[in-house]
Amino acid sequence: MAEIRVTNPDWVRDVVDFDCLYPDDDARVRVAVALARENVLRATGGPFGAAVFEGRTGRLVGVGTNGVVRLNNSSAHAEIVALMTAQSKLESFTLRGDGMPAHELFSSCEPCAMCLGATLWSGVTRLVFAATREDATRLSFDEGPVFPESYTYLEQRGIAIERGRLRAEATAVFDLYLERGGPIYNGGRGS
Amino acid sequence: MAEIRVTNPDWVRDVVDFDCLYPDDDARVRVAVALARENVLRATGGPFGAAVFEGRTGRLVGVGTNGVVRLNNSSAHAEIVALMTAQSKLESFTLRGDGMPAHELFSSCEPCAMCLGATLWSGVTRLVFAATREDATRLSFDEGPVFPESYTYLEQRGIAIERGRLRAEATAVFDLYLERGGPIYNGGRGS
Repeated sequence: MAEIRVTNPDWVRDVVDFDCLYPDDDARVRVAVALARENVLRATGGPFGAAVFEGRTGRLVGVGTNGVVRLNNSSAHAEIVALMTAQSKLESFTLRGDGMPAHELFSSCEPCAMCLGATLWSGVTRLVFAATREDATRLSFDEGPVFPESYTYLEQRGIAIERGRLRAEATAVFDLYLERGGPIYNGGRGS
Repeated sequence: MAEIRVTNPDWVRDVVDFDCLYPDDDARVRVAVALARENVLRATGGPFGAAVFEGRTGRLVGVGTNGVVRLNNSSAHAEIVALMTAQSKLESFTLRGDGMPAHELFSSCEPCAMCLGATLWSGVTRLVFAATREDATRLSFDEGPVFPESYTYLEQRGIAIERGRLRAEATAVFDLYLERGGPIYNGGRGS
């Protein structure tokens, strides 16, 4: 049977420090945004990055970069890759297992419909993102069927959500992507 | 960096015939349901299966079984695995690329919010599922924030949707899962 490999680019180990603790939201969002920026600069994917942290300690548990084109995988969004990496590292299909500390997902951009669903299943207790749906849409990336009730649904299941944290730093990466002429890909329309 | 492997169980090659053509919807749904059933009987995951076909010829391109617990990966739903397998085989991040035939996703159950988003990004032109959201919810599986507008969103982007095809065959697999005491896992609550 075919085996699918979901990987981050090798440069990630040079850009992200797994031994450091990230004390606050700004420091954590900046990891996600740095991954997005490097993904553009090194031409390894779309302008999106994400990271999973232990909420209390700020320990970095997993990271993800958009790898849709690189991996031939339309589900390889940054958030999905970060969540998979974290669960693989912790050898648990949930980040909210018995005895586990709370985990939080930080993304450089508002999650699309798929990634919002993945956030719900992952077991994180908090979602923080920088750029918004409007910013992504302005870049011509489709965000899919996400509605205000979608967020209510997550909140009712114990996931706190914070929007637009360091938004300008993330939209600067979108500008960089546009400047460099990066591909915009959506539901089946490659470019 | 950690590398995530997304795989189907080895038994899949004994259960599914990739050399055969599947002429109609019933035959295609039955592949998805057979994968769901075997996943229960062989205790390799939740009662969900999915498959991607070329629409016109009925050629089987990718298959997926729910592997959340087995793979420690809350995103390893049957539909995600089937789409990843198909895109990996075709070496394309979209199933709607230039010169490609149309592809269709068949699932034993209505896709959750994550998988509905993944369906949109995958490039399939049609989604057919057997058991419904109500059936899954009766089994205590959460389906996430999917609303009537979610389907409208997909339909407006060229994805035709057919619900409840051979529904009874898929809900029989749910009954089997219940009988066998299979785990129900949702957003962070293992069991």
